[in-house]
Amino acid sequence: MWGSICVMSTADLGLPVDVPSTALFTDRYELTMLQAALRSGAAGRRSVFEAFTRRLPDGRRYGVVAGTGRVLDAIENFRFDAPVLDFLRREGVVDEETLEYLAGYRFTGDVWGYPEGEVYFPGSPLLRVEGTFAEAVVLETVVLSILNHDSAIAAAASRMAAAAGGRPLMEMGARRTHELAAVAASRAAYIGGFRSSSNLAAGFRYGLPTIGTSAHAFTLLHDTEKGAFTAQVESLGRDTTLLVDTYDVATAVRTAVEVAGPELGAVRIDSGDLLLLAHRVRQQLDDLGAGKTKIVVTSDLDEYAIASLAAAPVDAYGVGTSLVTGSGHPTCAMVYKLVARAASDEPDAPLVPVAKKSSGGKTSIGGRKWAARRLDEDGVAEAEVIGSGPVPEELRDRQMLVPLVRGGEIVGREPLDAARARHIEARAGLPVSATQLSRGEPVLHTEYHLG
Amino acid sequence: MWGSICVMSTADLGLPVDVPSTALFTDRYELTMLQAALRSGAAGRRSVFEAFTRRLPDGRRYGVVAGTGRVLDAIENFRFDAPVLDFLRREGVVDEETLEYLAGYRFTGDVWGYPEGEVYFPGSPLLRVEGTFAEAVVLETVVLSILNHDSAIAAAASRMAAAAGGRPLMEMGARRTHELAAVAASRAAYIGGFRSSSNLAAGFRYGLPTIGTSAHAFTLLHDTEKGAFTAQVESLGRDTTLLVDTYDVATAVRTAVEVAGPELGAVRIDSGDLLLLAHRVRQQLDDLGAGKTKIVVTSDLDEYAIASLAAAPVDAYGVGTSLVTGSGHPTCAMVYKLVARAASDEPDAPLVPVAKKSSGGKTSIGGRKWAARRLDEDGVAEAEVIGSGPVPEELRDRQMLVPLVRGGEIVGREPLDAARARHIEARAGLPVSATQLSRGEPVLHTEYHLG
Repeated sequence: MWGSICVMSTADLGLPVDVPSTALFTDRYELTMLQAALRSGAAGRRSVFEAFTRRLPDGRRYGVVAGTGRVLDAIENFRFDAPVLDFLRREGVVDEETLEYLAGYRFTGDVWGYPEGEVYFPGSPLLRVEGTFAEAVVLETVVLSILNHDSAIAAAASRMAAAAGGRPLMEMGARRTHELAAVAASRAAYIGGFRSSSNLAAGFRYGLPTIGTSAHAFTLLHDTEKGAFTAQVESLGRDTTLLVDTYDVATAVRTAVEVAGPELGAVRIDSGDLLLLAHRVRQQLDDLGAGKTKIVVTSDLDEYAIASLAAAPVDAYGVGTSLVTGSGHPTCAMVYKLVARAASDEPDAPLVPVAKKSSGGKTSIGGRKWAARRLDEDGVAEAEVIGSGPVPEELRDRQMLVPLVRGGEIVGREPLDAARARHIEARAGLPVSATQLSRGEPVLHTEYHLG
Repeated sequence: MWGSICVMSTADLGLPVDVPSTALFTDRYELTMLQAALRSGAAGRRSVFEAFTRRLPDGRRYGVVAGTGRVLDAIENFRFDAPVLDFLRREGVVDEETLEYLAGYRFTGDVWGYPEGEVYFPGSPLLRVEGTFAEAVVLETVVLSILNHDSAIAAAASRMAAAAGGRPLMEMGARRTHELAAVAASRAAYIGGFRSSSNLAAGFRYGLPTIGTSAHAFTLLHDTEKGAFTAQVESLGRDTTLLVDTYDVATAVRTAVEVAGPELGAVRIDSGDLLLLAHRVRQQLDDLGAGKTKIVVTSDLDEYAIASLAAAPVDAYGVGTSLVTGSGHPTCAMVYKLVARAASDEPDAPLVPVAKKSSGGKTSIGGRKWAARRLDEDGVAEAEVIGSGPVPEELRDRQMLVPLVRGGEIVGREPLDAARARHIEARAGLPVSATQLSRGEPVLHTEYHLG
């Protein structure tokens, strides 16, 4: 029982990199359903699956689409190679006919979706996957893993970015989440408005700007704080950031300026009453002639703590735990539902809408859907309109879904900066109450125009 | 900007598998601190780092150590290969002297820790890493990522297992968390008491038993529910689990027994009032002569919902979201602190304790520590005793820390089942209030015996 399990890592811009498969990031039942559908003959029925959420996390006013680029990588690298097929055979997961199907698996269908960085609301069809039942059903688990995780992080990042105004946010949460979730979290945080990350793997994999200088351990390693600061400045330059709260903050700030001079880049405060300390340290730095030395604060910040520091002389925020855990909402409750399928096993059978109907909840709306964002007369978004018939004339140029995969070919790749810029624009187009941090209803209601 | 980033995947039992590096799951500041310490000459000082938490998540009564085996893999695979070094050089992260050090990096120190599956309390030194400052500091980020994530999941799993009594728990949360966090979550859930997982990658990587049969989409794909059930039974056998809540539950149960006969393995209920439905379905199955057909329930279960079903005729629970998000506490607040280091740069300088001392909180206790669990006269644990001097005679055979790495060689590998069994035993040794689900204080208080 061994093997290597790797994340997809085809370059964002499509460089031909040979990478391992994402095929096992899959619940067993996707493959047993496939086997039974191959047996019944229904596996080839054209099918439409949609990913959406029934609600936003409690109190949140909008969601943020993130992970789309990673979903495209996952679809491209969803292959069943020999070690994987051997495993499935050895464990008796599926029969030989199914293994044969999987050995040749390549997604050949179409995917549409909200572009990455967009905002979404309850019912928004974030992703629509169309193909045979067989090829579309097996993607469910990995598609949801990515969208549920990455969108949760991006939503938290977006709230923090709104709270920070124009001040830069640095992602520092790697140590608080799974080591690879951390890399995806850095990427999602960047889309949501963060500027940089402490995570070297995020720099390596996604080209994110990385930051960081030193921790308390570095000061404690040296015989004196002054010795530590001197070592750091000699090695990393005067524009480094010195951590000033290992012993006494006021003493450390004085020592820092003594060692680095007024060219000192920044000081970092990582504990205590940040509001009070920021004011005191700013005053002290100014008095010492270090008026250009910046103040960076870290220490269990979330969007509320960031907002509370708006009037403090803080130049940048470092955020860890609450970012990578979605600030109270570490997942998004996205589901991936069959909403339409061919009426019969005939090759050209028309699509019919389908939906779970039991009385116990978790129902959904059948039919292949479009979505559009209606604007009011001032150009501000006023409703998320979702329909399954023809798109009304007045909404045609306000449609949300864009092509991501056409006939199995990825067509929706884009640089991360495009998603980041799109998010800023999408959020700016919402009613102003969108960026209130207080709990509330979604800022747009969802209207259904069912054909 | 491209490359593949992979999880470590050396076999649990030490098979020689060539795997990519974990070295970039690291905050940039670990490497810049290293550079500055190489410059100051302090990088070679013998240092002791300890991982611990200052508190348990609010209301929790004990923590569960998980991820230790993954930490050992991460340490073993922490290497800086050419693409990684090129990246660090290109981005200007560190200077050539540091790159040279990293190119030859192999951890050569010692690691002690609480064995995986043990319980822990505030202050428990879960992991103690000893070596030069240089070799020990750079492990901080990946060690914390693993312990913080995996222990959070194991703690939730343990509460759910206690609530489930002897009934089996199935982990089904892959779709609710990052695709690789999901694999680690399955592993941690197994340690905490789960019996199986839906996640094929967890089966592939860790040999966990995998389970799963079908979803609503499979029923909706077919023209009738009966057609779907027939297809599933023909393909997967009569002992399969049929999902009975797509349309009407009572109708579905009747159809299920009609199709599969009384040998039907199980029915699954995934929505609605599970308590009520379980009783009704049990009665109906019994009336239909399917007295041995089991009832599996899923649908946003957590430890409280599981406990509320204790008196219901439920045979197994499937748990997703709340497991993989730590049931409200997705991370553990573990930190990795320098607690002692050589008094000078001399090769044989004695260790001196060090600790952050500023008034703003986040202080810690210096010194290389031991830990022991004191029992009362009935053999029940009564205190977690942590000290930095000699171990008192009466606690010598109650010590918690075991050797995991000696002189760079991994000595602490063990099968997952050993950690799973250890957890059951460790929890059973706690005061009975440990498994109360209600919020409370840690069931053991932490005593410090500082030398």
